[in-house]
Amino acid sequence: MQLAVIGLGLMGGSAAIDLKKRGFAGRIIGVDTNKLHAETALHLGIVDEITFMEEAMGKSDLVILAVPADAAVKLIPKIMDLTGKQFVTDMCSTKELLCQVIKYHPKRKNFVASHPMAGTEFSGPWAAKSGLFDGNAVIFCDAEESDVRSLAVVRRMYEALNMRPVFMDSASHDRHTAYVSHISHIISFALALTVLDQEKNERHIFDMASGGFDSTVRLAKSSAEMWSPVFEQNAENVLSVLSTYIRKLEDFKKAIQEHDTEQISKLIKDSNKIKKIL
Amino acid sequence: MQLAVIGLGLMGGSAAIDLKKRGFAGRIIGVDTNKLHAETALHLGIVDEITFMEEAMGKSDLVILAVPADAAVKLIPKIMDLTGKQFVTDMCSTKELLCQVIKYHPKRKNFVASHPMAGTEFSGPWAAKSGLFDGNAVIFCDAEESDVRSLAVVRRMYEALNMRPVFMDSASHDRHTAYVSHISHIISFALALTVLDQEKNERHIFDMASGGFDSTVRLAKSSAEMWSPVFEQNAENVLSVLSTYIRKLEDFKKAIQEHDTEQISKLIKDSNKIKKIL
Repeated sequence: MQLAVIGLGLMGGSAAIDLKKRGFAGRIIGVDTNKLHAETALHLGIVDEITFMEEAMGKSDLVILAVPADAAVKLIPKIMDLTGKQFVTDMCSTKELLCQVIKYHPKRKNFVASHPMAGTEFSGPWAAKSGLFDGNAVIFCDAEESDVRSLAVVRRMYEALNMRPVFMDSASHDRHTAYVSHISHIISFALALTVLDQEKNERHIFDMASGGFDSTVRLAKSSAEMWSPVFEQNAENVLSVLSTYIRKLEDFKKAIQEHDTEQISKLIKDSNKIKKIL
Repeated sequence: MQLAVIGLGLMGGSAAIDLKKRGFAGRIIGVDTNKLHAETALHLGIVDEITFMEEAMGKSDLVILAVPADAAVKLIPKIMDLTGKQFVTDMCSTKELLCQVIKYHPKRKNFVASHPMAGTEFSGPWAAKSGLFDGNAVIFCDAEESDVRSLAVVRRMYEALNMRPVFMDSASHDRHTAYVSHISHIISFALALTVLDQEKNERHIFDMASGGFDSTVRLAKSSAEMWSPVFEQNAENVLSVLSTYIRKLEDFKKAIQEHDTEQISKLIKDSNKIKKIL
Protein backbone atom coordinates (compact mmCIF):
# COMPACT_ATOMS: atom_id res chain seq x y z
CA MET A 1 0.00 0.00 0.00
CA GLN A 2 1.28 3.44 -1.00
CA LEU A 3 0.43 6.06 1.58
CA ALA A 4 0.35 9.86 1.24
CA VAL A 5 0.56 11.86 4.46
CA ILE A 6 -0.41 15.52 4.11
CA GLY A 7 0.91 17.39 7.15
CA LEU A 8 4.04 15.98 8.76
CA GLY A 9 3.56 17.10 12.34
CA LEU A 10 3.02 15.12 15.53
CA MET A 11 -0.04 13.24 14.26
CA GLY A 12 0.85 12.61 10.61
CA GLY A 13 4.47 11.89 11.47
CA SER A 14 3.64 9.43 14.24
CA ALA A 15 1.14 7.62 12.01
CA ALA A 16 3.73 7.40 9.22
CA ILE A 17 6.33 5.90 11.56
CA ASP A 18 4.13 3.09 12.85
CA LEU A 19 2.28 2.34 9.60
CA LYS A 20 5.62 1.76 7.91
CA LYS A 21 7.19 -0.12 10.82
CA ARG A 22 4.19 -2.40 11.21
CA GLY A 23 3.97 -3.23 7.50
CA PHE A 24 0.69 -1.47 6.72
CA ALA A 25 2.35 0.95 4.30
CA GLY A 26 5.09 0.09 1.82
CA ARG A 27 6.07 3.55 0.68
CA ILE A 28 5.16 6.80 2.37
CA ILE A 29 4.94 10.04 0.43
CA GLY A 30 4.99 13.20 2.49
CA VAL A 31 3.49 16.62 1.81
CA ASP A 32 3.98 19.73 3.90
CA THR A 33 3.85 23.41 2.91
CA ASN A 34 6.28 24.10 5.75
CA LYS A 35 9.63 23.39 4.09
CA LEU A 36 11.44 22.81 7.39
CA HIS A 37 8.84 20.27 8.49
CA ALA A 38 9.04 18.50 5.13
CA GLU A 39 12.83 18.34 5.08
CA THR A 40 12.98 17.23 8.72
CA ALA A 41 10.48 14.44 8.11
CA LEU A 42 12.54 13.22 5.17
CA HIS A 43 15.81 13.54 7.10
CA LEU A 44 14.39 11.60 10.08
CA GLY A 45 13.15 8.84 7.76
CA ILE A 46 9.51 9.45 8.65
CA VAL A 47 8.66 9.59 4.93
CA ASP A 48 10.33 8.08 1.86
CA GLU A 49 9.89 11.13 -0.33
CA ILE A 50 8.51 14.65 -0.31
CA THR A 51 6.45 16.06 -3.12
CA PHE A 52 3.46 18.27 -3.98
CA MET A 53 -0.07 17.29 -3.05
CA GLU A 54 -1.20 16.52 -6.60
CA GLU A 55 1.72 14.20 -7.27
CA ALA A 56 1.49 12.55 -3.83
CA MET A 57 -2.18 11.79 -4.34
CA GLY A 58 -1.61 10.46 -7.85
CA LYS A 59 0.87 7.91 -6.48
CA SER A 60 -1.17 6.79 -3.45
CA ASP A 61 -3.82 4.28 -2.46
CA LEU A 62 -4.63 6.01 0.82
CA VAL A 63 -4.28 9.65 1.82
CA ILE A 64 -4.09 10.87 5.43
CA LEU A 65 -4.88 14.53 5.98
CA ALA A 66 -3.15 15.57 9.21
CA VAL A 67 -3.12 19.36 9.20
CA PRO A 68 -4.69 21.90 11.62
CA ALA A 69 -8.50 22.14 11.51
CA ASP A 70 -8.61 25.45 9.61
CA ALA A 71 -6.23 24.22 6.92
CA ALA A 72 -8.15 20.93 6.70
CA VAL A 73 -11.45 22.67 5.95
CA LYS A 74 -9.78 24.66 3.17
CA LEU A 75 -7.90 21.69 1.71
CA ILE A 76 -10.51 18.96 1.83
CA PRO A 77 -12.61 20.06 -1.20
CA LYS A 78 -9.46 20.26 -3.31
CA ILE A 79 -8.32 16.85 -2.12
CA MET A 80 -11.70 15.32 -2.94
CA ASP A 81 -11.54 16.92 -6.40
CA LEU A 82 -8.18 15.19 -6.96
CA THR A 83 -9.51 11.88 -5.66
CA GLY A 84 -9.85 9.03 -8.14
CA LYS A 85 -9.70 5.51 -6.70
CA GLN A 86 -7.87 6.68 -3.54
CA PHE A 87 -9.30 6.51 -0.06
CA VAL A 88 -8.96 9.62 2.09
CA THR A 89 -9.07 10.07 5.85
CA ASP A 90 -8.24 12.89 8.26
CA MET A 91 -7.13 13.24 11.89
CA CYS A 92 -8.83 16.50 12.89
CA SER A 93 -10.07 17.29 16.41
CA THR A 94 -13.26 18.90 15.07
CA LYS A 95 -15.55 17.16 12.64
CA GLU A 96 -18.87 18.86 12.00
CA LEU A 97 -17.65 21.66 9.72
CA LEU A 98 -15.24 19.38 7.86
CA CYS A 99 -18.00 16.90 7.08
CA GLN A 100 -20.41 19.68 6.07
CA VAL A 101 -17.93 21.12 3.60
CA ILE A 102 -17.85 17.96 1.48
CA LYS A 103 -21.30 16.58 2.30
CA TYR A 104 -22.44 16.65 -1.33
CA HIS A 105 -19.08 16.07 -2.99
CA PRO A 106 -19.38 13.30 -5.62
CA LYS A 107 -16.37 11.56 -4.04
CA ARG A 108 -17.67 11.82 -0.44
CA LYS A 109 -17.87 8.02 -0.19
CA ASN A 110 -14.10 7.76 -0.58
CA PHE A 111 -13.62 9.87 2.56
CA VAL A 112 -13.64 8.54 6.14
CA ALA A 113 -13.81 11.18 8.88
CA SER A 114 -11.71 9.95 11.79
CA HIS A 115 -10.22 11.35 14.97
CA PRO A 116 -7.56 9.34 16.76
CA MET A 117 -7.79 10.36 20.45
CA ALA A 118 -4.06 10.66 21.08
CA GLY A 119 -1.43 13.35 21.17
CA THR A 120 1.09 15.19 23.29
CA GLU A 121 1.71 18.87 24.02
CA PHE A 122 4.50 18.91 21.45
CA SER A 123 4.23 19.54 17.73
CA GLY A 124 6.16 19.23 14.48
CA PRO A 125 7.90 16.20 12.94
CA TRP A 126 10.49 16.17 15.76
CA ALA A 127 7.64 15.35 18.17
CA ALA A 128 6.48 12.37 16.08
CA LYS A 129 7.04 9.02 17.76
CA SER A 130 6.22 5.35 17.57
CA GLY A 131 3.43 4.14 19.84
CA LEU A 132 1.60 7.48 20.09
CA PHE A 133 -1.77 5.97 19.17
CA ASP A 134 -1.48 2.57 20.89
CA GLY A 135 -4.38 1.63 23.13
CA ASN A 136 -6.51 4.73 22.60
CA ALA A 137 -9.88 5.18 20.88
CA VAL A 138 -10.35 6.36 17.31
CA ILE A 139 -13.67 8.02 16.56
CA PHE A 140 -15.24 7.39 13.15
CA CYS A 141 -17.76 10.11 12.34
CA ASP A 142 -20.76 9.85 10.04
CA ALA A 143 -19.43 6.47 8.91
CA GLU A 144 -22.61 5.81 6.89
CA GLU A 145 -21.43 8.51 4.46
CA SER A 146 -18.33 6.45 3.60
CA ASP A 147 -18.61 3.36 1.43
CA VAL A 148 -17.78 -0.09 2.80
CA ARG A 149 -14.39 -0.36 1.09
CA SER A 150 -13.17 3.06 2.27
CA LEU A 151 -14.20 2.32 5.82
CA ALA A 152 -12.59 -1.15 5.71
CA VAL A 153 -9.22 0.25 4.59
CA VAL A 154 -9.19 3.05 7.15
CA ARG A 155 -10.27 0.67 9.93
CA ARG A 156 -7.38 -1.63 9.00
CA MET A 157 -5.06 1.36 9.18
CA TYR A 158 -6.19 2.18 12.72
CA GLU A 159 -5.95 -1.49 13.69
CA ALA A 160 -2.28 -1.27 12.70
CA LEU A 161 -2.05 1.74 15.05
CA ASN A 162 -3.61 -0.37 17.84
CA MET A 163 -6.65 1.84 18.24
CA ARG A 164 -10.16 0.72 19.19
CA PRO A 165 -12.97 2.06 17.00
CA VAL A 166 -15.88 4.14 18.34
CA PHE A 167 -18.66 5.33 16.00
CA MET A 168 -20.73 8.50 16.27
CA ASP A 169 -22.14 11.34 14.21
CA SER A 170 -19.91 14.37 13.77
CA ALA A 171 -22.13 16.65 15.90
CA SER A 172 -21.92 14.27 18.88
CA HIS A 173 -18.18 13.97 18.35
CA ASP A 174 -17.73 17.72 18.59
CA ARG A 175 -19.92 17.90 21.70
CA HIS A 176 -18.02 15.10 23.45
CA THR A 177 -14.53 16.29 22.54
CA ALA A 178 -15.39 19.73 23.97
CA TYR A 179 -15.67 17.93 27.34
CA VAL A 180 -12.88 15.39 27.18
CA SER A 181 -10.26 17.28 25.25
CA HIS A 182 -10.87 20.91 24.25
CA ILE A 183 -11.75 22.21 27.73
CA SER A 184 -8.63 20.57 29.22
CA HIS A 185 -6.51 22.68 26.92
CA ILE A 186 -8.26 25.94 27.81
CA ILE A 187 -7.88 25.03 31.50
CA SER A 188 -4.13 24.64 31.09
CA PHE A 189 -3.66 27.73 28.94
CA ALA A 190 -5.52 29.82 31.54
CA LEU A 191 -3.47 28.34 34.39
CA ALA A 192 -0.23 29.22 32.63
CA LEU A 193 -1.49 32.77 32.01
CA THR A 194 -2.47 33.11 35.69
CA VAL A 195 0.91 32.01 36.95
CA LEU A 196 2.85 33.99 34.34
CA ASP A 197 0.98 37.14 35.39
CA GLN A 198 2.25 36.64 38.91
CA GLU A 199 5.72 35.59 37.88
CA LYS A 200 6.62 39.08 36.72
CA ASN A 201 7.28 39.91 40.36
CA GLU A 202 7.96 36.58 41.88
CA ARG A 203 10.45 34.56 39.96
CA HIS A 204 10.92 31.69 42.37
CA ILE A 205 7.35 30.42 42.19
CA PHE A 206 8.80 28.04 39.63
CA ASP A 207 11.34 26.70 42.01
CA MET A 208 8.40 25.31 43.93
CA ALA A 209 6.42 23.76 41.11
CA SER A 210 5.91 20.04 41.65
CA GLY A 211 4.13 17.18 39.92
CA GLY A 212 0.61 18.47 40.53
CA PHE A 213 1.25 21.77 38.82
CA ASP A 214 3.24 20.14 36.02
CA SER A 215 0.39 17.84 35.09
CA THR A 216 -2.32 20.51 35.08
CA VAL A 217 -0.18 22.98 33.13
CA ARG A 218 1.36 20.48 30.69
CA LEU A 219 -1.11 21.13 27.88
CA ALA A 220 -0.32 24.86 27.98
CA LYS A 221 2.70 24.00 25.85
CA SER A 222 0.35 23.04 22.99
CA SER A 223 0.47 25.04 19.78
CA ALA A 224 -1.80 27.95 18.85
CA GLU A 225 -1.67 26.84 15.21
CA MET A 226 -3.47 23.63 16.08
CA TRP A 227 -5.78 24.76 18.91
CA SER A 228 -6.99 28.17 17.85
CA PRO A 229 -9.03 26.79 14.88
CA VAL A 230 -10.35 23.94 17.04
CA PHE A 231 -11.89 26.39 19.54
CA GLU A 232 -13.23 28.49 16.70
CA GLN A 233 -14.81 25.62 14.78
CA ASN A 234 -16.24 24.08 17.94
CA ALA A 235 -17.17 27.41 19.52
CA GLU A 236 -20.73 26.57 20.53
CA ASN A 237 -19.84 23.39 22.42
CA VAL A 238 -16.66 24.81 23.91
CA LEU A 239 -18.51 27.88 25.20
CA SER A 240 -21.18 25.74 26.79
CA VAL A 241 -18.60 23.57 28.60
CA LEU A 242 -16.57 26.62 29.57
CA SER A 243 -19.65 28.24 31.14
CA THR A 244 -20.40 25.12 33.18
CA TYR A 245 -16.75 24.95 34.20
CA ILE A 246 -16.67 28.57 35.37
CA ARG A 247 -19.85 27.89 37.38
CA LYS A 248 -18.10 25.00 39.16
CA LEU A 249 -15.16 27.25 39.99
CA GLU A 250 -17.61 29.85 41.33
CA ASP A 251 -19.07 27.11 43.56
CA PHE A 252 -15.61 26.53 45.02
CA LYS A 253 -15.04 30.27 45.36
CA LYS A 254 -18.28 30.75 47.26
CA ALA A 255 -17.65 27.81 49.58
CA ILE A 256 -14.13 29.04 50.37
CA GLN A 257 -15.30 32.64 50.83
CA GLU A 258 -17.93 31.47 53.31
CA HIS A 259 -15.45 29.17 55.09
CA ASP A 260 -18.01 26.44 54.48
CA THR A 261 -15.82 23.40 55.21
CA GLU A 262 -18.69 21.01 54.72
CA GLN A 263 -19.47 22.37 51.25
CA ILE A 264 -15.78 22.40 50.20
CA SER A 265 -15.53 18.75 51.27
CA LYS A 266 -18.75 17.89 49.45
CA LEU A 267 -17.51 19.44 46.19
CA ILE A 268 -14.22 17.53 46.45
CA LYS A 269 -15.94 14.25 47.29
CA ASP A 270 -18.37 14.68 44.40
CA SER A 271 -15.45 15.29 42.04
CA ASN A 272 -13.67 12.21 43.43
CA LYS A 273 -16.38 10.11 41.69
CA ILE A 274 -14.27 10.48 38.56
CA LYS A 275 -12.13 7.70 40.12
CA LYS A 276 -14.85 5.16 39.40
CA ILE A 277 -14.72 5.95 35.71
CA LEU A 278 -11.11 6.75 34.90
CA MET B 1 18.32 8.22 65.26
CA GLN B 2 14.89 7.28 66.58
CA LEU B 3 12.11 8.79 64.48
CA ALA B 4 8.45 9.31 65.35
CA VAL B 5 6.05 9.76 62.44
CA ILE B 6 2.63 11.14 63.37
CA GLY B 7 0.24 10.48 60.49
CA LEU B 8 1.00 7.43 58.36
CA GLY B 9 -0.48 8.50 55.04
CA LEU B 10 1.18 9.20 51.69
CA MET B 11 3.62 11.81 53.03
CA GLY B 12 4.53 10.38 56.44
CA GLY B 13 4.63 6.83 55.08
CA SER B 14 6.84 7.71 52.11
CA ALA B 15 9.23 9.65 54.35
CA ALA B 16 9.43 6.70 56.78
CA ILE B 17 10.25 4.26 53.97
CA ASP B 18 13.18 6.25 52.58
CA LEU B 19 14.56 7.55 55.88
CA LYS B 20 14.86 3.96 57.08
CA LYS B 21 16.12 2.57 53.80
CA ARG B 22 18.76 5.28 53.44
CA GLY B 23 20.04 4.91 56.99
CA PHE B 24 18.88 8.25 58.37
CA ALA B 25 16.55 6.62 60.90
CA GLY B 26 17.29 3.50 62.90
CA ARG B 27 13.90 2.80 64.40
CA ILE B 28 10.61 4.33 63.28
CA ILE B 29 7.70 4.68 65.66
CA GLY B 30 4.34 5.33 64.04
CA VAL B 31 1.29 7.14 65.36
CA ASP B 32 -2.10 7.33 63.64
CA THR B 33 -5.57 7.80 65.14
CA ASN B 34 -6.94 5.86 62.16
CA LYS B 35 -6.52 2.26 63.32
CA LEU B 36 -6.61 0.83 59.80
CA HIS B 37 -3.86 3.20 58.65
CA ALA B 38 -1.75 2.35 61.71
CA GLU B 39 -2.14 -1.40 61.31
CA THR B 40 -1.51 -1.23 57.56
CA ALA B 41 1.68 0.82 58.05
CA LEU B 42 2.93 -1.76 60.56
CA HIS B 43 1.91 -4.67 58.34
CA LEU B 44 3.66 -3.14 55.31
CA GLY B 45 6.84 -2.58 57.34
CA ILE B 46 6.65 1.21 56.95
CA VAL B 47 7.09 1.57 60.74
CA ASP B 48 8.69 -0.66 63.36
CA GLU B 49 6.02 -0.14 65.99
CA ILE B 50 2.75 1.67 66.60
CA THR B 51 1.99 3.51 69.80
CA PHE B 52 0.37 6.63 71.27
CA MET B 53 1.72 10.09 70.62
CA GLU B 54 3.06 10.65 74.15
CA GLU B 55 4.99 7.39 74.15
CA ALA B 56 6.25 7.85 70.58
CA MET B 57 7.58 11.29 71.40
CA GLY B 58 9.23 10.10 74.61
CA LYS B 59 11.20 7.52 72.63
CA SER B 60 12.23 9.80 69.72
CA ASP B 61 14.97 12.20 68.69
CA LEU B 62 12.99 13.66 65.80
CA VAL B 63 9.24 13.92 65.28
CA ILE B 64 7.58 14.35 61.87
CA LEU B 65 4.02 15.66 61.92
CA ALA B 66 2.38 14.50 58.69
CA VAL B 67 -1.36 14.95 59.21
CA PRO B 68 -3.93 17.11 57.33
CA ALA B 69 -3.59 20.87 57.91
CA ASP B 70 -6.60 21.16 60.22
CA ALA B 71 -5.41 18.32 62.46
CA ALA B 72 -1.88 19.77 62.44
CA VAL B 73 -3.04 23.12 63.79
CA LYS B 74 -4.89 21.37 66.61
CA LEU B 75 -2.05 18.96 67.43
CA ILE B 76 0.99 21.20 67.24
CA PRO B 77 0.56 23.02 70.61
CA LYS B 78 0.14 19.67 72.34
CA ILE B 79 3.20 18.26 70.58
CA MET B 80 5.28 21.28 71.56
CA ASP B 81 4.09 20.88 75.17
CA LEU B 82 5.39 17.29 75.11
CA THR B 83 8.69 18.34 73.53
CA GLY B 84 11.83 18.00 75.64
CA LYS B 85 15.09 17.58 73.72
CA GLN B 86 13.32 16.36 70.56
CA PHE B 87 13.26 18.20 67.28
CA VAL B 88 9.90 18.54 65.55
CA THR B 89 9.01 19.20 61.91
CA ASP B 90 5.83 19.05 59.83
CA MET B 91 4.89 18.47 56.18
CA CYS B 92 1.81 20.67 55.83
CA SER B 93 0.79 22.45 52.61
CA THR B 94 -0.16 25.62 54.51
CA LYS B 95 2.16 27.34 56.94
CA GLU B 96 1.03 30.73 58.17
CA LEU B 97 -1.62 29.58 60.64
CA LEU B 98 0.51 26.69 61.88
CA CYS B 99 3.41 28.99 62.63
CA GLN B 100 1.15 31.56 64.29
CA VAL B 101 -0.33 28.98 66.64
CA ILE B 102 3.04 28.25 68.27
CA LYS B 103 4.77 31.57 67.65
CA TYR B 104 5.29 32.22 71.39
CA HIS B 105 5.59 28.63 72.55
CA PRO B 106 8.67 28.23 74.79
CA LYS B 107 9.77 25.26 72.69
CA ARG B 108 9.29 27.06 69.33
CA LYS B 109 13.01 26.80 68.57
CA ASN B 110 12.77 23.01 68.50
CA PHE B 111 10.27 23.21 65.64
CA VAL B 112 11.14 23.53 61.94
CA ALA B 113 8.23 24.38 59.61
CA SER B 114 8.80 22.54 56.34
CA HIS B 115 6.83 21.68 53.23
CA PRO B 116 8.21 19.03 50.89
CA MET B 117 6.79 19.87 47.44
CA ALA B 118 5.90 16.33 46.43
CA GLY B 119 2.86 14.10 46.41
CA THR B 120 0.46 12.13 44.29
CA GLU B 121 -3.32 12.09 43.98
CA PHE B 122 -3.46 9.00 46.21
CA SER B 123 -3.60 8.85 49.98
CA GLY B 124 -3.18 6.49 52.92
CA PRO B 125 -0.25 4.20 53.83
CA TRP B 126 -0.95 2.01 50.75
CA ALA B 127 -0.01 5.03 48.60
CA ALA B 128 3.33 5.52 50.38
CA LYS B 129 6.35 4.77 48.22
CA SER B 130 10.08 5.09 48.00
CA GLY B 131 11.39 7.98 45.92
CA LEU B 132 8.34 10.23 46.32
CA PHE B 133 10.43 13.23 47.39
CA ASP B 134 13.52 12.75 45.23
CA GLY B 135 14.58 15.78 43.22
CA ASN B 136 11.89 18.18 44.42
CA ALA B 137 12.12 21.32 46.54
CA VAL B 138 11.47 21.46 50.28
CA ILE B 139 10.40 24.84 51.62
CA PHE B 140 11.66 25.86 55.07
CA CYS B 141 9.44 28.58 56.51
CA ASP B 142 10.39 31.22 59.08
CA ALA B 143 13.67 29.33 59.58
CA GLU B 144 14.99 32.12 61.86
CA GLU B 145 12.46 30.96 64.47
CA SER B 146 14.17 27.55 64.69
CA ASP B 147 17.50 27.14 66.41
CA VAL B 148 20.59 26.08 64.52
CA ARG B 149 20.61 22.50 65.77
CA SER B 150 16.93 21.88 64.93
CA LEU B 151 17.38 23.24 61.46
CA ALA B 152 20.55 21.21 60.90
CA VAL B 153 18.84 17.93 61.82
CA VAL B 154 15.78 18.59 59.69
CA ARG B 155 17.95 19.71 56.75
CA ARG B 156 19.91 16.46 57.02
CA MET B 157 16.62 14.58 57.00
CA TYR B 158 15.54 16.25 53.74
CA GLU B 159 18.99 15.69 52.26
CA ALA B 160 18.38 11.97 52.85
CA LEU B 161 15.11 12.43 50.93
CA ASN B 162 17.07 14.07 48.06
CA MET B 163 15.29 17.39 48.31
CA ARG B 164 16.76 20.83 47.64
CA PRO B 165 16.11 23.47 50.29
CA VAL B 166 14.31 26.76 49.60
CA PHE B 167 13.82 29.34 52.37
CA MET B 168 10.97 31.82 52.77
CA ASP B 169 8.62 33.28 55.35
CA SER B 170 5.37 31.43 55.93
CA ALA B 171 3.19 34.17 54.41
CA SER B 172 5.15 34.06 51.13
CA HIS B 173 4.97 30.28 51.18
CA ASP B 174 1.19 30.32 51.40
CA ARG B 175 0.94 32.90 48.61
CA HIS B 176 3.23 30.92 46.30
CA THR B 177 1.66 27.52 46.94
CA ALA B 178 -1.75 28.99 46.12
CA TYR B 179 -0.34 29.48 42.59
CA VAL B 180 1.77 26.40 42.06
CA SER B 181 -0.23 23.81 43.93
CA HIS B 182 -3.58 24.74 45.47
CA ILE B 183 -5.15 26.22 42.33
CA SER B 184 -4.16 23.14 40.29
CA HIS B 185 -6.26 21.03 42.60
CA ILE B 186 -9.34 23.27 42.36
CA ILE B 187 -8.93 23.28 38.57
CA SER B 188 -9.01 19.49 38.48
CA PHE B 189 -11.86 19.13 40.96
CA ALA B 190 -13.96 21.56 38.89
CA LEU B 191 -13.15 19.75 35.65
CA ALA B 192 -14.25 16.44 37.13
CA LEU B 193 -17.50 18.04 38.34
CA THR B 194 -18.12 19.54 34.89
CA VAL B 195 -17.66 16.25 33.09
CA LEU B 196 -19.58 14.24 35.71
CA ASP B 197 -22.54 16.62 35.31
CA GLN B 198 -22.65 15.80 31.62
CA GLU B 199 -21.98 12.13 32.08
CA LYS B 200 -25.43 11.54 33.57
CA ASN B 201 -26.74 11.50 30.01
CA GLU B 202 -23.74 10.62 27.96
CA ARG B 203 -21.91 7.64 29.26
CA HIS B 204 -19.40 7.14 26.49
CA ILE B 205 -17.62 10.45 26.95
CA PHE B 206 -15.22 8.35 28.97
CA ASP B 207 -14.53 6.03 26.13
CA MET B 208 -12.97 9.01 24.41
CA ALA B 209 -10.85 10.37 27.24
CA SER B 210 -7.18 10.47 26.28
CA GLY B 211 -3.91 11.62 27.81
CA GLY B 212 -4.73 15.32 27.81
CA PHE B 213 -7.88 14.88 29.85
CA ASP B 214 -6.22 12.35 32.15
CA SER B 215 -3.45 14.71 33.10
CA THR B 216 -5.69 17.73 33.78
CA VAL B 217 -8.21 15.66 35.78
CA ARG B 218 -5.68 13.52 37.66
CA LEU B 219 -5.62 15.65 40.81
CA ALA B 220 -9.41 15.35 41.13
CA LYS B 221 -8.74 12.00 42.76
CA SER B 222 -7.12 13.80 45.72
CA SER B 223 -8.73 13.50 49.13
CA ALA B 224 -11.15 15.97 50.70
CA GLU B 225 -9.64 15.24 54.11
CA MET B 226 -6.34 16.71 53.04
CA TRP B 227 -7.45 19.50 50.67
CA SER B 228 -10.50 20.98 52.32
CA PRO B 229 -8.50 22.42 55.29
CA VAL B 230 -5.77 23.65 52.93
CA PHE B 231 -8.25 25.79 50.98
CA GLU B 232 -9.80 27.00 54.21
CA GLN B 233 -6.52 27.93 55.89
CA ASN B 234 -5.19 29.57 52.74
CA ALA B 235 -8.53 31.11 51.76
CA GLU B 236 -7.32 34.63 51.06
CA ASN B 237 -4.53 33.62 48.67
CA VAL B 238 -6.55 30.87 47.02
CA LEU B 239 -9.48 33.23 46.39
CA SER B 240 -7.18 35.80 44.84
CA VAL B 241 -5.62 33.25 42.47
CA LEU B 242 -9.03 31.76 41.69
CA SER B 243 -10.37 35.20 40.73
CA THR B 244 -7.44 35.81 38.38
CA TYR B 245 -7.90 32.34 36.93
CA ILE B 246 -11.61 32.88 36.26
CA ARG B 247 -10.74 36.19 34.55
CA LYS B 248 -8.34 34.35 32.22
CA LEU B 249 -11.08 31.85 31.36
CA GLU B 250 -13.44 34.76 30.68
CA ASP B 251 -10.81 36.17 28.29
CA PHE B 252 -10.89 32.89 26.37
CA LYS B 253 -14.67 32.84 26.47
CA LYS B 254 -14.92 36.34 25.05
CA ALA B 255 -12.39 35.67 22.29
CA ILE B 256 -14.18 32.47 21.27
CA GLN B 257 -17.61 34.14 21.43
CA GLU B 258 -16.38 36.89 19.14
CA HIS B 259 -14.66 34.42 16.80
CA ASP B 260 -11.55 36.50 17.33
CA THR B 261 -8.96 34.08 15.95
CA GLU B 262 -6.15 36.52 16.46
CA GLN B 263 -6.97 37.02 20.14
CA ILE B 264 -7.40 33.25 20.74
CA SER B 265 -3.97 32.68 19.18
CA LYS B 266 -2.47 35.49 21.23
CA LEU B 267 -3.78 34.02 24.49
CA ILE B 268 -2.41 30.59 23.59
CA LYS B 269 0.98 31.98 22.53
CA ASP B 270 1.22 34.02 25.72
CA SER B 271 0.49 30.91 27.77
CA ASN B 272 3.12 28.96 25.79
CA LYS B 273 5.75 31.12 27.53
CA ILE B 274 5.46 28.67 30.42
CA LYS B 275 7.69 26.43 28.25
CA LYS B 276 10.66 28.65 28.94
CA ILE B 277 10.32 28.15 32.65
CA LEU B 278 9.12 24.57 33.12
